[in-house]
Amino acid sequence: MASANTGFFLTIEGCEGAGKTTAVNVIKQWLDSRSIEFTETREPGGTPMAENLRSLLLDHGDEKVADITELLLMFAARSQNLFHNIEPALKQGRVVLCDRFTDATFAYQGGGRQLGVQQIATLETLVQGERRPDMTILLDVEPEVGLARARSRAAEQGGQLDRIEQEAMDFFSRVRNAYLERARQYPEQFEIIDAGQPLEVVKTQLLEVLERRLGDR
Amino acid sequence: MASANTGFFLTIEGCEGAGKTTAVNVIKQWLDSRSIEFTETREPGGTPMAENLRSLLLDHGDEKVADITELLLMFAARSQNLFHNIEPALKQGRVVLCDRFTDATFAYQGGGRQLGVQQIATLETLVQGERRPDMTILLDVEPEVGLARARSRAAEQGGQLDRIEQEAMDFFSRVRNAYLERARQYPEQFEIIDAGQPLEVVKTQLLEVLERRLGDR
Repeated sequence: MASANTGFFLTIEGCEGAGKTTAVNVIKQWLDSRSIEFTETREPGGTPMAENLRSLLLDHGDEKVADITELLLMFAARSQNLFHNIEPALKQGRVVLCDRFTDATFAYQGGGRQLGVQQIATLETLVQGERRPDMTILLDVEPEVGLARARSRAAEQGGQLDRIEQEAMDFFSRVRNAYLERARQYPEQFEIIDAGQPLEVVKTQLLEVLERRLGDR
Repeated sequence: MASANTGFFLTIEGCEGAGKTTAVNVIKQWLDSRSIEFTETREPGGTPMAENLRSLLLDHGDEKVADITELLLMFAARSQNLFHNIEPALKQGRVVLCDRFTDATFAYQGGGRQLGVQQIATLETLVQGERRPDMTILLDVEPEVGLARARSRAAEQGGQLDRIEQEAMDFFSRVRNAYLERARQYPEQFEIIDAGQPLEVVKTQLLEVLERRLGDR
């Protein structure tokens, strides 16, 4: 278990519609209730430049973005977030709560877009050195359920699904499988929660994980 | 020699004040005079996204840019330029004239900022595969001469030297040495012209190189 005054890098992962936003709020309330100092961030994003890169990734007009460009921009944003937010906060002994991190790149670019996993691993080492999440909560959901939720949310907001969310169902299946494969490879890092269960059950399991992994802080 | 209908990838390299702009104009006039079809581009740049990335690199407000971020953004812009401009033009058998390319990354980020050459070589392979310039004209100039020229030009334009040009003299020496080291490593790729010579001599030598390497197109 992580003791107080040791940084703890907690990432939340999952496909669209898995309930990441709700989970992040539950985690924040739990951390607040324990008076545990934390820094919240998201990927891609976390600094003005990284947010600029996020915007470029999500809206790039008519210009087709090469797969490798997308990958480099993801890691460039990540590099800024690590440099300015994540590493300094961990050094101060804080919990860092990050909405998606490199496992999302393995899932979306590696699994979804079928880029070479070796390319992603190369960039991971280049940008992060030895830095990896201490714990990753994977909200696992059937693609059908997740996509239906994401579509319903977009419709409620009168908005369009963004580029990545418009991808087809088999894309989502590949993303989900890549996430599950990561979890199989790194069982000490990953906590999988079945996000297809009723919300109260998901919350209960989330709190159990937090208690078990961060309860002694 | 490259025969007609084979793409030819020509890059121009040199420190600030080496006279790249003049050289590019001489080359364009020579290509026009021979009715050789060419595509002109510059790095970082060449597409709207790459130009956005160029702007981000040159002006990023107060946000410190991590060295590795700079490197990733350079290669992201390069990736877009390769995908949209350079590779299609070469495929059509055109000459591509590019104002700076990856040798500049080795010189500025590798030599100037002293980033690991291996990191740059890793990204080079990731983004370019086997693609390398067919010929690189290196305009070599003493740092004192180049910097004085660059400063005088900036003053004439009433402008400021940009971030990279504000770096100190020892930075320029490292950049120059890194360029010369690249030329030593890849003698078949590089043509070095002493850009400290009078302009007419530089032009004459430039035309000699073009005649020798591209004269049969």
